[in-house]
Amino acid sequence: METGAQAREAIRAGRWTGPTAGLAPGYTQANLVILPKADAFDFLRFAVRNPKPCPVLDVTAPGSPHPDPLWAEGADLRTDLPRYRVYEHGGLTAEPADLLAWWRDDMVAFLLGCSFTFERALLAEGVPVRHLACGCNVPMYRTSRETRPAGCFHGPLVVSMRPIPADQVAKAVQITARYPSVHGAPVHIGDPAALGIGDLTRPDYGDPVPIQPGEVPVFWACGVTPQAVALASCIPLMITHAPGHMFITDRQDIELAG
Amino acid sequence: METGAQAREAIRAGRWTGPTAGLAPGYTQANLVILPKADAFDFLRFAVRNPKPCPVLDVTAPGSPHPDPLWAEGADLRTDLPRYRVYEHGGLTAEPADLLAWWRDDMVAFLLGCSFTFERALLAEGVPVRHLACGCNVPMYRTSRETRPAGCFHGPLVVSMRPIPADQVAKAVQITARYPSVHGAPVHIGDPAALGIGDLTRPDYGDPVPIQPGEVPVFWACGVTPQAVALASCIPLMITHAPGHMFITDRQDIELAG
Repeated sequence: METGAQAREAIRAGRWTGPTAGLAPGYTQANLVILPKADAFDFLRFAVRNPKPCPVLDVTAPGSPHPDPLWAEGADLRTDLPRYRVYEHGGLTAEPADLLAWWRDDMVAFLLGCSFTFERALLAEGVPVRHLACGCNVPMYRTSRETRPAGCFHGPLVVSMRPIPADQVAKAVQITARYPSVHGAPVHIGDPAALGIGDLTRPDYGDPVPIQPGEVPVFWACGVTPQAVALASCIPLMITHAPGHMFITDRQDIELAG
Repeated sequence: METGAQAREAIRAGRWTGPTAGLAPGYTQANLVILPKADAFDFLRFAVRNPKPCPVLDVTAPGSPHPDPLWAEGADLRTDLPRYRVYEHGGLTAEPADLLAWWRDDMVAFLLGCSFTFERALLAEGVPVRHLACGCNVPMYRTSRETRPAGCFHGPLVVSMRPIPADQVAKAVQITARYPSVHGAPVHIGDPAALGIGDLTRPDYGDPVPIQPGEVPVFWACGVTPQAVALASCIPLMITHAPGHMFITDRQDIELAG
């Protein structure tokens, strides 16, 4: 699975069913949000008002599960992710391995940037990425910070966290700021209580990671935010990727640098 | 007219009817595109696929002429620009001073970033901006470069041009790259023929400006692109600002730096 296309093929065939971290290294992964067309326009307005958690990479035509070939040639968003989540009326109701039974002719799919994209740039410049070193998913937290609402969409900002040595925090800010379409610079550095996060060892999504002495928790806006919004807003139907089970594109991480 | 709000008030009252360059210095100006909701979603997809000419700053709720207060408190997009253009079925059919007779309950308004925003930063770092020195509008050109289509929207990229001394071109690229939401770095530097532009003295929009010996024409993606798209795509109805007659927001230019 050296390329994004090979990874999607393995996932579609059921040969890969787990999280996608480390698959097709160097190929950008993306968050997925699927909505009926009736709600899609308001979600796109929501994304415009919240570009840090919801940087829009692509939007399909209504009814089409195929993203722009610029992002992924021959891809099918119903089958090419290892696991999905179905949110209905404010609850998580299913976690299917494909969407063949769920897709409808009025569905619109959004690809949103994912912070995995800038992790290779961090590593390349000597900044450690703890969850990669641990071989687990990045820890993600619901915060007390509200997104800017649009139409019926409202809810809390979700962030991902990476512990960074204090003398490398400025470097991590500079590197990730070069990637605005995959969440860009951090939204918060340091005290988790300022974001309403009580306990870093209990993330709301993903896995906890150890923080070493001399390290600062650094928080980036996260593409799981729409899933917290689906719960808070009681949206009738929203389908997403399962956290950590991303869509793998044909584009290289380095292409996303601004 | 020291603030954006004061400029909008003067325009709404009919006390200012001309181009907006130089009004409320330091306040970001924006391009306007208005479409019936039936076409608005495809236009938003078009904008996502063409972020250089169409960086979306805000999208109103269907039927609402009021942008996000974050951009302009108490503004009304039907009256707060000095001049508008109405495009119907691929033709320019009217150029009204307000939209009170045109607005409908299904209208959606888009604010798109405008390159006027980064001109103060250019001047502050010693890069000349010729059309400001000349007291005229920036020259704009239709190019032979196609936008990426979405739904029924397709057509040529429109660019603005500023002549820059050769030894300051790199600086101009670096400065404008810091402003991705107002077209960012240039799309082309030098030979206009490579963009299909035959004669720089005859712009398709705005005014011609002199190019001095030792200067290079530098081209930025332009928010007038949707107007060329309206003509090429035969969209049933699209309403825009008249070129140079922009919407003036409450936000400072410097806030738009990435």
